Amino acid sequence: MTDKNLALRYEENGKPGDVLRLEELPYPSLGEGEVCLRLLASPIHPSDLGMIAGTYGKKKTLPATGGREGLGEVVEVGSGVSWVKVGERFRIPEGAGCWQRFVAVAAADLWPVPKDLPAEQTAMSFVNPPTALRLLEDFVDLQPGDWVIQNAGNSAVGFAVNQLASRRGIKVVNLVRDESWKEPLQEAGAEMVFTESEFDPRELRKSLSGAGLRLGLNSVGGNSVSQIIKSVGDGATVVTFGGMVGDPVRFPTRYLIFNDIRLVGFWMDRWYRTQPKSAVKQMMEEIHRAQRTGHLQVPIDQTYPLEKGLEAVARAATSGRRGKVLITG
Amino acid sequence: MTDKNLALRYEENGKPGDVLRLEELPYPSLGEGEVCLRLLASPIHPSDLGMIAGTYGKKKTLPATGGREGLGEVVEVGSGVSWVKVGERFRIPEGAGCWQRFVAVAAADLWPVPKDLPAEQTAMSFVNPPTALRLLEDFVDLQPGDWVIQNAGNSAVGFAVNQLASRRGIKVVNLVRDESWKEPLQEAGAEMVFTESEFDPRELRKSLSGAGLRLGLNSVGGNSVSQIIKSVGDGATVVTFGGMVGDPVRFPTRYLIFNDIRLVGFWMDRWYRTQPKSAVKQMMEEIHRAQRTGHLQVPIDQTYPLEKGLEAVARAATSGRRGKVLITG
Repeated sequence: MTDKNLALRYEENGKPGDVLRLEELPYPSLGEGEVCLRLLASPIHPSDLGMIAGTYGKKKTLPATGGREGLGEVVEVGSGVSWVKVGERFRIPEGAGCWQRFVAVAAADLWPVPKDLPAEQTAMSFVNPPTALRLLEDFVDLQPGDWVIQNAGNSAVGFAVNQLASRRGIKVVNLVRDESWKEPLQEAGAEMVFTESEFDPRELRKSLSGAGLRLGLNSVGGNSVSQIIKSVGDGATVVTFGGMVGDPVRFPTRYLIFNDIRLVGFWMDRWYRTQPKSAVKQMMEEIHRAQRTGHLQVPIDQTYPLEKGLEAVARAATSGRRGKVLITG
Repeated sequence: MTDKNLALRYEENGKPGDVLRLEELPYPSLGEGEVCLRLLASPIHPSDLGMIAGTYGKKKTLPATGGREGLGEVVEVGSGVSWVKVGERFRIPEGAGCWQRFVAVAAADLWPVPKDLPAEQTAMSFVNPPTALRLLEDFVDLQPGDWVIQNAGNSAVGFAVNQLASRRGIKVVNLVRDESWKEPLQEAGAEMVFTESEFDPRELRKSLSGAGLRLGLNSVGGNSVSQIIKSVGDGATVVTFGGMVGDPVRFPTRYLIFNDIRLVGFWMDRWYRTQPKSAVKQMMEEIHRAQRTGHLQVPIDQTYPLEKGLEAVARAATSGRRGKVLITG
């Protein structure tokens, strides 16, 4: 390997722009049962930035390499590993840190990824699309014709919710900050898209006779979740799965009491921690099948090679992106 | 009957002090299947004031008589009613309005109340103590040794929660606004009582190792519910059943996501509307049994005869009361 083993690392928690450094690590030496993965692609999530900042629900032991989700290609196989071949693709285990070119990982921790799918999309197939799938499946028994409302419709999860729901005949109302997302979201299967400023929850509730809107999805907080709570039908469930660094959730007590709204949370990390591998396998097969047929595609803003990793992180922290920012190896 | 049939009535929704009038009604003439009840006692609840103001979850057809919960004694029995006798006690049906001395009601709507219990306590046995019972039974499978936290510990529901919980070996942490409630609450079986200003949710969470606190009860909103959310263990349920005219519920998103806290509502009215009579009967028997043994007693601030009903309503709207205000017939 002639490429330098660059890595985006941090020694203390803090603002990613302040604490992340681009370092050169030695090429990893493989122990028994290990393989060396070369980074193909890794998205930069808000939760990556939160974990570096120390505001996320869990922390890494420091110093650490950033990046929790990514796709790697096997470049070397250690002794005792018979079932892995050079050139095969696997998810880079979260604990290893994805934002480094080469990393040695235990073969036992590897999760296989089909080679015939675009690397950027499969690199993003473990967190956001599965979140969308769980949100649609685990909280309310949605039937074709049912409605769902979500804020941050233009997020990676938001797109996946539209794509997965429309295939099932479930209609999604999207709230976005910016007019320009209307068209791409409609192409992704959205039934309705409103900017938050033009949205009137009472009007929507009236037009759907309330009862039809059974699930609300919140990754923003503040006034936005309040709008969702006011628009869903009696007895609806509102799931919060993001927005942990934003405004607090706030809404009038009466919606809990008189409208029987239930507020719960979802954390993909907990799901992975508590589910059997068979459930993960089944879910990933469903995600990859939808990616193969083109029904599941996360919009990409820009990709940066590791050499420009700090620029990538800065870009990921800006608003007005047109999708995910990815780092490639 | 020589007593005047006085009634506290309102023709429009508004501030109770502005819209309530003390009126004299004719003595009711009984139709077939009806009985005439004479008011024994009726509490003034925040929800009574909310219903008069028009801020409650449902409204009465106007003009209306105030008061949703009360105890009456049969003074006359109409034709065709064989199973009801003069002198027996029944709940005054909510729709009839409790704050009037005499009211004709359909015998079919009557709910019997034991005669050997104090009229004031049984007059308050249909809303607050049942709410406490449902809160303890319907949301979390509480076991002896489990902990519950509630704000407004000094409310009628709050007292009943302590009384019912302590009999089951369940420990209740109470938040109150005022130091002076500590002693009466401890006498009612409270395990801990804190004023909201001295309470530190992180300290409680630490001292109970988090997991032990499985149920939070909120009837206040605002900062108070946020303190409850921060003190309960991971996976706990926080039930809101009151406080609908107060501050909104607000709390950081992270508690939903990382701590898996669930927020739900409870409305006693909905429970009554959706449960079979057999469930109501069983519950009321349990409540009256606990009242008979003295284990369930709602504190009383003051009682006023109907003639002074407007004073009673004014008193009920003040803070610093030492219990419920009741109107007697």
